[in-house]
Amino acid sequence: MAVNVSIPKGTRDFSPTEMSRRKYIFDTIENVFRLYGYLPIETPAMENLSTLLGKYGEEGDKLIYQIRSNKNLREILSKEHIKKIDEIYPFWLPQKSENGLRYDLTVPFARFVVMHQNEITFPFKRYQMQPVWRADRPQKGRYREFYQCDVDVIGSNSLINEAELIQIIYDIFQKFGLNIIIKINSRKILSGIAEIIGEPGKMIDIAIAIDKADKIGWDSVVEDLKIRGLHEKSISLLLDIFNYGEKPDAPTVSDTQAAPDKMLLNNLSVTLKNSQTGNNGINEIYRVTDLLKDINPEINVEFDPTLARGLDYYTGAIIEVKAKDVVMGSICGGGRYDDLTGIFGLPGVSGVGVSFGADRIYDVLNELKLFPENTGISTQILFVNFGQQEEKYALQALAKLRKNGINAELYPDASKMKKQFAYADAKRIPFVAIAGSNEIAANCFKLKTMSSGDEKNVSIEEMISTLKK
Amino acid sequence: MAVNVSIPKGTRDFSPTEMSRRKYIFDTIENVFRLYGYLPIETPAMENLSTLLGKYGEEGDKLIYQIRSNKNLREILSKEHIKKIDEIYPFWLPQKSENGLRYDLTVPFARFVVMHQNEITFPFKRYQMQPVWRADRPQKGRYREFYQCDVDVIGSNSLINEAELIQIIYDIFQKFGLNIIIKINSRKILSGIAEIIGEPGKMIDIAIAIDKADKIGWDSVVEDLKIRGLHEKSISLLLDIFNYGEKPDAPTVSDTQAAPDKMLLNNLSVTLKNSQTGNNGINEIYRVTDLLKDINPEINVEFDPTLARGLDYYTGAIIEVKAKDVVMGSICGGGRYDDLTGIFGLPGVSGVGVSFGADRIYDVLNELKLFPENTGISTQILFVNFGQQEEKYALQALAKLRKNGINAELYPDASKMKKQFAYADAKRIPFVAIAGSNEIAANCFKLKTMSSGDEKNVSIEEMISTLKK
Repeated sequence: MAVNVSIPKGTRDFSPTEMSRRKYIFDTIENVFRLYGYLPIETPAMENLSTLLGKYGEEGDKLIYQIRSNKNLREILSKEHIKKIDEIYPFWLPQKSENGLRYDLTVPFARFVVMHQNEITFPFKRYQMQPVWRADRPQKGRYREFYQCDVDVIGSNSLINEAELIQIIYDIFQKFGLNIIIKINSRKILSGIAEIIGEPGKMIDIAIAIDKADKIGWDSVVEDLKIRGLHEKSISLLLDIFNYGEKPDAPTVSDTQAAPDKMLLNNLSVTLKNSQTGNNGINEIYRVTDLLKDINPEINVEFDPTLARGLDYYTGAIIEVKAKDVVMGSICGGGRYDDLTGIFGLPGVSGVGVSFGADRIYDVLNELKLFPENTGISTQILFVNFGQQEEKYALQALAKLRKNGINAELYPDASKMKKQFAYADAKRIPFVAIAGSNEIAANCFKLKTMSSGDEKNVSIEEMISTLKK
Repeated sequence: MAVNVSIPKGTRDFSPTEMSRRKYIFDTIENVFRLYGYLPIETPAMENLSTLLGKYGEEGDKLIYQIRSNKNLREILSKEHIKKIDEIYPFWLPQKSENGLRYDLTVPFARFVVMHQNEITFPFKRYQMQPVWRADRPQKGRYREFYQCDVDVIGSNSLINEAELIQIIYDIFQKFGLNIIIKINSRKILSGIAEIIGEPGKMIDIAIAIDKADKIGWDSVVEDLKIRGLHEKSISLLLDIFNYGEKPDAPTVSDTQAAPDKMLLNNLSVTLKNSQTGNNGINEIYRVTDLLKDINPEINVEFDPTLARGLDYYTGAIIEVKAKDVVMGSICGGGRYDDLTGIFGLPGVSGVGVSFGADRIYDVLNELKLFPENTGISTQILFVNFGQQEEKYALQALAKLRKNGINAELYPDASKMKKQFAYADAKRIPFVAIAGSNEIAANCFKLKTMSSGDEKNVSIEEMISTLKK
């Protein structure tokens, strides 16, 4: 029988080794989220299509996986209609789709907050680590099923939240041993710039266009801005403000005395002096960086007025993180949104959050060999199986080890020694216990350290204390 | 704007409180799996429809969620066809579905083993804890999205595996503090019975029919057996063997001297003396219970010759677990299958495994109030926010607490005290720190224990040591 043994394009299986590395990533992220008082929620994989559609732009709508409904049209249509359709297209009849797979965790979160608003105590600090699905063209680093790790606080305007989210970012990537650049900007500054260049209604257009500068280059951004209806004069003013051509790298907000970023912020505040919104944005950046300086002066944040983030709903600070020593898109990003829940009928609740891209972080840690040495080791000891005579002795020792919280196993079959040791090697089990008739007679075990090959006879108590180390 | 704020029927959101309880369940199960040397894998939510269809019977096929393909038929069909279809049914054209959401974890596991057979070291001991989806009619305790926690070993015939899986079951429910009944039978015994009553080809029919005895009663089982083509004489013999009517409760396999189960097993071995398969089954039950007696005499296993399990693929031991003090279907079950991977072209690989129903276990623990008291407590301490003057002092203390691994937060806004304390209450935060101008001047914190209302002034070091307890 010819069998199709494959999985859908853009999806992946995870082996035990990959799982242990993924667990390391998720556990590290989750522990830091908890350190800052965030708590988990989960939402269903399926949402009503009405919840999902229209939230991600026209392109996004096309990428939503729709679930075929069970309400088979054959049960609804007249026999005559069914016959006609079957004649024309004999495959099968359409079924109306009512549900879709979630595209991200932000829209389901907004839906969750609105639906459970009476049970929630605000400010609501939540995290959510679940897969999302996009019917995108798969390519390197882009999957159709991938995990997002979102952390958001909703119902608080305080900039302490922005500062703490940046601390969270710093702490997590410190734990990963990864060098990163954290960039910050504010949609209010972009709004101010839009005002000053004479295009007050075009902030989102500007943001979406300049967000792609890294990928498509500034010349194409300029073309896009023209298409989006900005006047040439405005575009020219915009490029002046960004010093395009002269300073390709954005200056850094740091706490050193000669900080060019402070200069940049100061210059911008002069440029934007006639825009109240623009000035608010600049003051917010000052406030967030001042807070961070008080808490942990080692946290470096680059102010980048060209940072835009492509999404519609941001209204305040926007944050983006890239890994320093590897070529990869952003591995974390987010910002403040003043009205995310408005789309579901609960207006005026401000929130701020960031999302960690677990799959990209995996690829970066893998490339830089930053996974801890012992990731993947779970079983501490394997007992060699000599057959039914010796089994009982091993099984009773195993029960004691497990009572002491030590992961331990007996090879289930009395196979050749070579095969049993190969199993220990493949699972990276650090110790092997040998208990044949001699050891049983002496009420001991031969304990072999796999890394060195050393062997010594030990009692069960000695074995437990060795393995607990 | 009228907004549909709901989620698909049969799916659920999980609040932080529910998540903490679910995490307790998953962590407990996972830790025991690891104690016995099992390692995790994950497979994609979507599988090829060809992988899923035909594996769960005709009824099962109908319950598989199919994903609409992106390959729109409008792009494939001739304009003439499109026009005709649109005339008859103007909704939209069908899209051929190629993928479906997984229905369980067993079939994806078999597919995984076949697909990765060259990377896997056998025996392969894996666990998998992921959601599955069934387009079933939702009702109490039955969801369209729910979690399965499967543990299987594949590539070993040893009955040690059966014994260890029962140990795993015992350990897990011990940790939950739940009284359970573990029932065991063997498909080989059912095969033997089928032989003896003169219906050698009907083992699966018998299993599927008697599996429903609990729900539909024996009279309906008899009707079903007739429909399935068993002769009246055979059915009558079958009922005799099961002592239907006289012994509604199955006797227990235990290690006490007067064990009626041994009698039952002995009687059955006489009844089945002319069936090699039946006798093999009986000997396997003896062997598994003997192993368990050696390892942990406290583990009680009931032998129940009427235990059947509905699924097609079991060929050896079958196991089922029910909670004692609550009305609920089985909360765990499984068995041995000799040829699960055969459907994907890898025949002759025997495996055995059980599946824990996390959602039912949740409901049982909830009903019996067996969740630990401290489940749901994450943040250890909340700092009251007095405004920008006092913020820095609190934030610096928070940084120290978090360095020590203590989950801690500052209320982000300088709201009324009452509101801030209500927040601590809602999140069940056990301590509140108050740091106003007096405390800052004295370089201390007022530490309030929420349960008692006690307050005392402490240094940051004293606070850390109190919270680390």
